[in-house]
Amino acid sequence: MVNVGIIGAGRIGQVHAKSILTGVPDAKIVALADPYMKPEVAAWAKSVGIENVCADYHEILNDPHIDAVLICAPTDQHAQLSLEAIAAGKHVFCEKPIDQSIAKIEEVKAALAASPKKLVYQVGFNRRYDHNYRAMRKAIEDGKIGEVQFVRISSRDPEPPPAKYVAVSGGIFMDMMIHDLDMVRYLSGQEIVELYAQGACLIDPAIGEAGDVDTVTITLKLSNGALATIDGSRKAVYGYDQRGEVFGSKGCVMNANDSESNIVLSTVDGVTGEKPLWFFLERYMGSYQAEVREFIDCVKNGRDPWVGIEDGLLSIKLALACSKSLKENRPVRIDEI
Amino acid sequence: MVNVGIIGAGRIGQVHAKSILTGVPDAKIVALADPYMKPEVAAWAKSVGIENVCADYHEILNDPHIDAVLICAPTDQHAQLSLEAIAAGKHVFCEKPIDQSIAKIEEVKAALAASPKKLVYQVGFNRRYDHNYRAMRKAIEDGKIGEVQFVRISSRDPEPPPAKYVAVSGGIFMDMMIHDLDMVRYLSGQEIVELYAQGACLIDPAIGEAGDVDTVTITLKLSNGALATIDGSRKAVYGYDQRGEVFGSKGCVMNANDSESNIVLSTVDGVTGEKPLWFFLERYMGSYQAEVREFIDCVKNGRDPWVGIEDGLLSIKLALACSKSLKENRPVRIDEI
Amino acid sequence: MVNVGIIGAGRIGQVHAKSILTGVPDAKIVALADPYMKPEVAAWAKSVGIENVCADYHEILNDPHIDAVLICAPTDQHAQLSLEAIAAGKHVFCEKPIDQSIAKIEEVKAALAASPKKLVYQVGFNRRYDHNYRAMRKAIEDGKIGEVQFVRISSRDPEPPPAKYVAVSGGIFMDMMIHDLDMVRYLSGQEIVELYAQGACLIDPAIGEAGDVDTVTITLKLSNGALATIDGSRKAVYGYDQRGEVFGSKGCVMNANDSESNIVLSTVDGVTGEKPLWFFLERYMGSYQAEVREFIDCVKNGRDPWVGIEDGLLSIKLALACSKSLKENRPVRIDEI
Amino acid sequence: MVNVGIIGAGRIGQVHAKSILTGVPDAKIVALADPYMKPEVAAWAKSVGIENVCADYHEILNDPHIDAVLICAPTDQHAQLSLEAIAAGKHVFCEKPIDQSIAKIEEVKAALAASPKKLVYQVGFNRRYDHNYRAMRKAIEDGKIGEVQFVRISSRDPEPPPAKYVAVSGGIFMDMMIHDLDMVRYLSGQEIVELYAQGACLIDPAIGEAGDVDTVTITLKLSNGALATIDGSRKAVYGYDQRGEVFGSKGCVMNANDSESNIVLSTVDGVTGEKPLWFFLERYMGSYQAEVREFIDCVKNGRDPWVGIEDGLLSIKLALACSKSLKENRPVRIDEI
Repeated sequence: MVNVGIIGAGRIGQVHAKSILTGVPDAKIVALADPYMKPEVAAWAKSVGIENVCADYHEILNDPHIDAVLICAPTDQHAQLSLEAIAAGKHVFCEKPIDQSIAKIEEVKAALAASPKKLVYQVGFNRRYDHNYRAMRKAIEDGKIGEVQFVRISSRDPEPPPAKYVAVSGGIFMDMMIHDLDMVRYLSGQEIVELYAQGACLIDPAIGEAGDVDTVTITLKLSNGALATIDGSRKAVYGYDQRGEVFGSKGCVMNANDSESNIVLSTVDGVTGEKPLWFFLERYMGSYQAEVREFIDCVKNGRDPWVGIEDGLLSIKLALACSKSLKENRPVRIDEI
Repeated sequence: MVNVGIIGAGRIGQVHAKSILTGVPDAKIVALADPYMKPEVAAWAKSVGIENVCADYHEILNDPHIDAVLICAPTDQHAQLSLEAIAAGKHVFCEKPIDQSIAKIEEVKAALAASPKKLVYQVGFNRRYDHNYRAMRKAIEDGKIGEVQFVRISSRDPEPPPAKYVAVSGGIFMDMMIHDLDMVRYLSGQEIVELYAQGACLIDPAIGEAGDVDTVTITLKLSNGALATIDGSRKAVYGYDQRGEVFGSKGCVMNANDSESNIVLSTVDGVTGEKPLWFFLERYMGSYQAEVREFIDCVKNGRDPWVGIEDGLLSIKLALACSKSLKENRPVRIDEI
Repeated sequence: MVNVGIIGAGRIGQVHAKSILTGVPDAKIVALADPYMKPEVAAWAKSVGIENVCADYHEILNDPHIDAVLICAPTDQHAQLSLEAIAAGKHVFCEKPIDQSIAKIEEVKAALAASPKKLVYQVGFNRRYDHNYRAMRKAIEDGKIGEVQFVRISSRDPEPPPAKYVAVSGGIFMDMMIHDLDMVRYLSGQEIVELYAQGACLIDPAIGEAGDVDTVTITLKLSNGALATIDGSRKAVYGYDQRGEVFGSKGCVMNANDSESNIVLSTVDGVTGEKPLWFFLERYMGSYQAEVREFIDCVKNGRDPWVGIEDGLLSIKLALACSKSLKENRPVRIDEI
Repeated sequence: MVNVGIIGAGRIGQVHAKSILTGVPDAKIVALADPYMKPEVAAWAKSVGIENVCADYHEILNDPHIDAVLICAPTDQHAQLSLEAIAAGKHVFCEKPIDQSIAKIEEVKAALAASPKKLVYQVGFNRRYDHNYRAMRKAIEDGKIGEVQFVRISSRDPEPPPAKYVAVSGGIFMDMMIHDLDMVRYLSGQEIVELYAQGACLIDPAIGEAGDVDTVTITLKLSNGALATIDGSRKAVYGYDQRGEVFGSKGCVMNANDSESNIVLSTVDGVTGEKPLWFFLERYMGSYQAEVREFIDCVKNGRDPWVGIEDGLLSIKLALACSKSLKENRPVRIDEI
């Protein structure tokens, strides 16, 4: 049994807690810490058997019975909390991104390397655990499509964020496309060597005024010579559009969107199925449980997780390369970053 | 907050317990009773905060703090436990079937009618709460297909039960098609007036030797004059095949199967998607949580559930009419039963 | 090169003529006869190289250079023209039905058997040559679904015929379901032993007043013990709905409707594809060319066609059995007819 | 009635002849010319009523009864034959490309502008007339997806051409992607302003040795600010993969591949549909008839065709821009060409 402490009791912290309670039988949540915890969350936490519901995360780091922590605090605390947890000898599951600064992530990486105890450090790129993307990855690993020659990711949010958020988001590549850049690496099993990003502001002028774009394409060259494209949009009126396609020497694998139901209605207006799920938490709910189950399994068996510190670091470099490419309107090699 | 006791800690009892813990915030499981409870189930129950984990269900019926019980014991105890729970003034969620005997269900019905306190009595026809069938029903209620003229249900299990089970199952109509007969009523919003059942033993000769069939069709006449067909099979090698179609004056609504993922693989062998989910608990998992949420809501708001004692009674009559029709090779009116 | 004469220059006669001109290189249309031929049809026929464009079909039957005739005259002349063509030693492709009377078809059958020259006699059940149904049949013949256990045909016209036509049509079973009854035999490779038909008048009261029904279901027992259902409707507002499904011990094969294009539109209203093709001639156009190509090939190679006199005869018996079953509300064995 | 002469009796010339015979009633093929005509083609041409079957195309250009010519000769004769036909006052349908040289196309353009008689000049970009792409274009014109923000074209051949052909093909952009570049313009209704092309040789090393690539991506900026990507491959083992997607402010429209049938087979191996059609002539057959029908209609009504000399010219410029971009590894503006 792995004893777990969760730092941060907001939306994602609660998601992880429920995942463990119902689907990770070999983990036990011993403590939940949040300085701003809502009373109803605290009450619920106690009702489901969490013993230590507290404000100060140090209670978790100092508890010798706790093996692992889930860092679900605000993004700007991820790196610092990671460093403290590593120092306390805890295995760490850290929500993404670790930080927007390469230097800070390097610091965490160094701390991990220096730790006398081998620690599991997993980053919350949950989409790698999504049922559709896992099935695609598995088909590719099983050789079903042969050598990868081309990857495509289409990634469209249902609604743009407020312009105020855009200003502090790090930009569309850092905030949104980072998942898709990681997905190209995950699905292809290849590294990205060079990329060319294009962008336009076609949805909300306020996004442009905040210095960002809302519609992008990225062309990528992979380490095995394959090519890839990513297209992204901040607003698809029909829902959260999340599709990928990997083409190779023996075939092609792609996925369709998930929807609330599989019904189809035929009328004089056409043959109509349901729209994609709207809300990312609903669309990717299964992946949140799967990634935590994987984390606990890594802790128990001393395995490396699918998404470690290096993946977290690379995703930031790729996002920065995109920004640079868009600004300079030229292809950028990742080793320039 | 509705206080709940669960009688029976087997597979379905655990399913309902987890549903309540994670998705029914206005219910609290106060007690779980089973004379043959496994130690690991008892340990888990305690770890998630269930106070009274016991062997004797009388502890539940006698607990004045408990508002409602979920009857998840073996089928032959459903009617008796229902009567005792009603006598104890508890709201009841009873797994299906209430009983295979019409007389016993009539007894429960009479007890409910005689109860001085108005009690909610819901029967576990979970498929009515399935995301696909609910969406179909909603489209029909919203008038999207106009007047219902034809209903079709295709229902195929992935594997036949052992012949030993077949012998005590009450036959394919009582054991399996009962869900589909209920589904025709649910989707159409009509009553069944007459039916004609055909059957054959094409899958496992042992099923025939046990006096049953494994492949069936049922033709039905509905109260508004519409027609319906049901086809059933004990074995679809590609998985649990659960599809329906309702056709009307303004259109047609149908559903597709659920599968593990939505990926599609194109190779020299064709363009291949995943098989339907194999296991009924996996396929209908969402419906179990939805039906319990509905039950708690009915208890809180004094509403009648979608599936009450009358639906439970009718399903048995319909199954018996099918058996009679098959035996006598003629259409049978439901009012003959 | 097979020399062909076409008797009847109406819609279907022209369809067959165009099929031969563009897709049957080993046949030459030598003559086209119709007492009521439109001038523009005659002009077109001459412009595409048909030498003898005439009013009297005897010119075709008496022409010793003509090997084969296509009978595309009105239905009530099919049997008589068949007898005359057989007497003239011509191979015959006859539009369906040969006749509504079993006795008349038996007469044609006897004439064929008595012919000193072995003649090809093909009946125009074009759906057997449809790309979708052929592909289904091929999958079944190739053993892809194992032993056939269940067949389903759904057959819905886009619009009901005028009540005036209904009165002389022979009824929905003879006029419309006859194709679907043939399709059960074709797809399953089995004979029909017994059937039970139900019907209702739900679409147009005038159809009921004409003594017919517009919504039907048929349950069938096949010679290998398998079961089948057919559902039919005179009016599907979304188009011509033509689907089938065959289920067996190793799998299931089904088809989807054809539509004008394969585009899919995602908007706030849903994810919408095109409706099925509306017009039967458009939906089944490919099958008309395929059946004529098959006929010419049979003539050239002395082969028996897929759909011969026996199939034409059986289809009438099956339609009559349906009418009897509906009238008497009981299952009817085909050998009762 | 428009009198037509066809220059070139090879594969595509025969396709157009059959299209006119069966589907373009207001056109009459008066002459067919080819210096290397096969005897069986000549025999067939006469049998379907073509009066002048000859070797020398001057017989067509000099025939005052002929209104329009279809240029189906080898590519290197397209420009010269266009000039002669224009000089003879004939309307011209010219197979694509007009020429690989911009100068030669400009010469044809100048001749057209100088013609005293207003002549229709249509280029054979048949895909614009394909049922799927037309339906997509219509949805966009009807405002179904709002303002275009992103276009994607995926274009994969089933088999690479022989390396010998590659060497004289003008390269993958000129030979293959030229259709897809035109499709971006057609679907979006926008002009292409700038593009960035990437390429790799992943399929056949002989293609690389011939100085070409076999796998490409192109990123494009359109005149309204929208973005687009094209991905192309010389070899998709599962067939001819031809898909597009246009995304806008109100929705998204995409198409699926066409296949031989719409059947779906469910077995232990999955749920499998048919592969895309393999052969481009089969896949796009309907578009060949539609484009010729359009041409005749333009001639009769003095309309401009959908695909004129300017479109033919632009397609060459775009292909050249792609080659330049790939070579220099930088984005290239079209006005650089």
